[in-house]
Amino acid sequence: MRIATLALIGVGLIGGSIGLAARRRGVAGRVVGADRDAAVRDHAVAAGILDAACDDPAVAARQADFVVVCTPVDHIPQGILAAASACKAGAVLTDVGSTKAAIVAAVRGRLPAGVGFVGSHPLAGSEKHGPEHARADLFAGRLVVLTPTPESGAAPLAVVRGFWEALGARVRLMEATEHDRALALTSHLPHLLASALAGTLPPDLYELTATGFADTTRLASGNPALWTAIFGANRDGVLAALEVFGEGLARFRQALAAGDAAALNALLQRGKSVRDHLNNPP
Amino acid sequence: MRIATLALIGVGLIGGSIGLAARRRGVAGRVVGADRDAAVRDHAVAAGILDAACDDPAVAARQADFVVVCTPVDHIPQGILAAASACKAGAVLTDVGSTKAAIVAAVRGRLPAGVGFVGSHPLAGSEKHGPEHARADLFAGRLVVLTPTPESGAAPLAVVRGFWEALGARVRLMEATEHDRALALTSHLPHLLASALAGTLPPDLYELTATGFADTTRLASGNPALWTAIFGANRDGVLAALEVFGEGLARFRQALAAGDAAALNALLQRGKSVRDHLNNPP
Repeated sequence: MRIATLALIGVGLIGGSIGLAARRRGVAGRVVGADRDAAVRDHAVAAGILDAACDDPAVAARQADFVVVCTPVDHIPQGILAAASACKAGAVLTDVGSTKAAIVAAVRGRLPAGVGFVGSHPLAGSEKHGPEHARADLFAGRLVVLTPTPESGAAPLAVVRGFWEALGARVRLMEATEHDRALALTSHLPHLLASALAGTLPPDLYELTATGFADTTRLASGNPALWTAIFGANRDGVLAALEVFGEGLARFRQALAAGDAAALNALLQRGKSVRDHLNNPP
Repeated sequence: MRIATLALIGVGLIGGSIGLAARRRGVAGRVVGADRDAAVRDHAVAAGILDAACDDPAVAARQADFVVVCTPVDHIPQGILAAASACKAGAVLTDVGSTKAAIVAAVRGRLPAGVGFVGSHPLAGSEKHGPEHARADLFAGRLVVLTPTPESGAAPLAVVRGFWEALGARVRLMEATEHDRALALTSHLPHLLASALAGTLPPDLYELTATGFADTTRLASGNPALWTAIFGANRDGVLAALEVFGEGLARFRQALAAGDAAALNALLQRGKSVRDHLNNPP
């Protein structure tokens, strides 16, 4: 996998990490980027993430063979369409949005001929943001979900798959709405719970928290604007995940209220068995 | 602070860490311990946590000037009473239970004359258990809540406070029921949520989890029997905390269902401001 010119539209934590990883692994000859924030552009060039930066996605995309749109999810469709309209024939685009169905639907049927697009979601990130937290190894060993459609074609899919694999990631294909339903449970719900839990804490109890509270609420430090957009783009999925979680929580409440130690122990055992499994996959 | 003989009743993660810390900091001349589990006793002696081990709390306590009961919370009252009945006059006892009101009530008025008791809760721990995970620095910089009663007296309180401070901890005094209400929110509720969240995950979604899910559910790996006992001992507190959390969660659900991005953003901002504050205390 060797891309002559890689363009990043949005150079935050994820875009910056893609730039660093592509350089480190020799995947891209040249890396250019577009970001609306001048401080981000300056940092990305100074830190060696980008060879050149501008504020216009179309200008960055014009030179590129491969484009990754790394903006907040609510700006991704316009980023893809702006970049696609400027690309040379044969260019391939992807994005890194945490939701996929709305993006895939917004782009479908609106790409110029000869330009390919397959949506991506790298399951990697951080509650931090900005290119100053970018890491060249952010994708190593991580899963990237790709959401091709019947129209997206085999050649662009092979390019997008090859790109992520060249950054050290594993790839799995899913249908976009299936992705969104699954990630509502594995990513969006945990964020919501972390935030709701942090929000219940009155200041006089801050001192009485320890590592357990800190870990359980770590995600709450994430960027509210980014997450408002993610929740907005996957509203039905998150509401369904909340419903499932609410049923599980009701079982705990019932066992507690009834003083049913055996039922409580079984529920805790069920949670432990799932969690231990994640620590030690077979 | 110098204790001639320290006795630990229960030598798991917490008891083992107390033994290591007391040795490392020269707080105890001799450390003896009682544990029902022969493998734990053997490990604790071999690892240098204990000078001598036995299976009978009364035997361990007989030699001790200071006793710390570190069993699961549902065994703490009997451990305190067994140790207290064997102690020499002037000995002081404490415990490390995550709940305090039931323990303080079970012990009140039942101690031999000349033996002091003040309950403790060190806000330190791990989802791991057993003396093989003990750490000499587990209490350094951590808060320990002490729950004296009007009857527990100034001298035992001074000894218990001095002990924890000698292990590097900070000390705060609280009334036992106030402690339990507060810890329901800062410790027991996060555990319950982590477990409930882990329990909602079907096996086909394991692969689609990343660090966010892992952090939010870390506590779910804790020992179900220990936590069944903690929830049982603080049932009212945990039910009240669930009520408060349920109201917060309902606000998220409502903002989501209404598509109210401003309300959602405000809720996320509230969670972030609490969580960021915990990372960067003033």
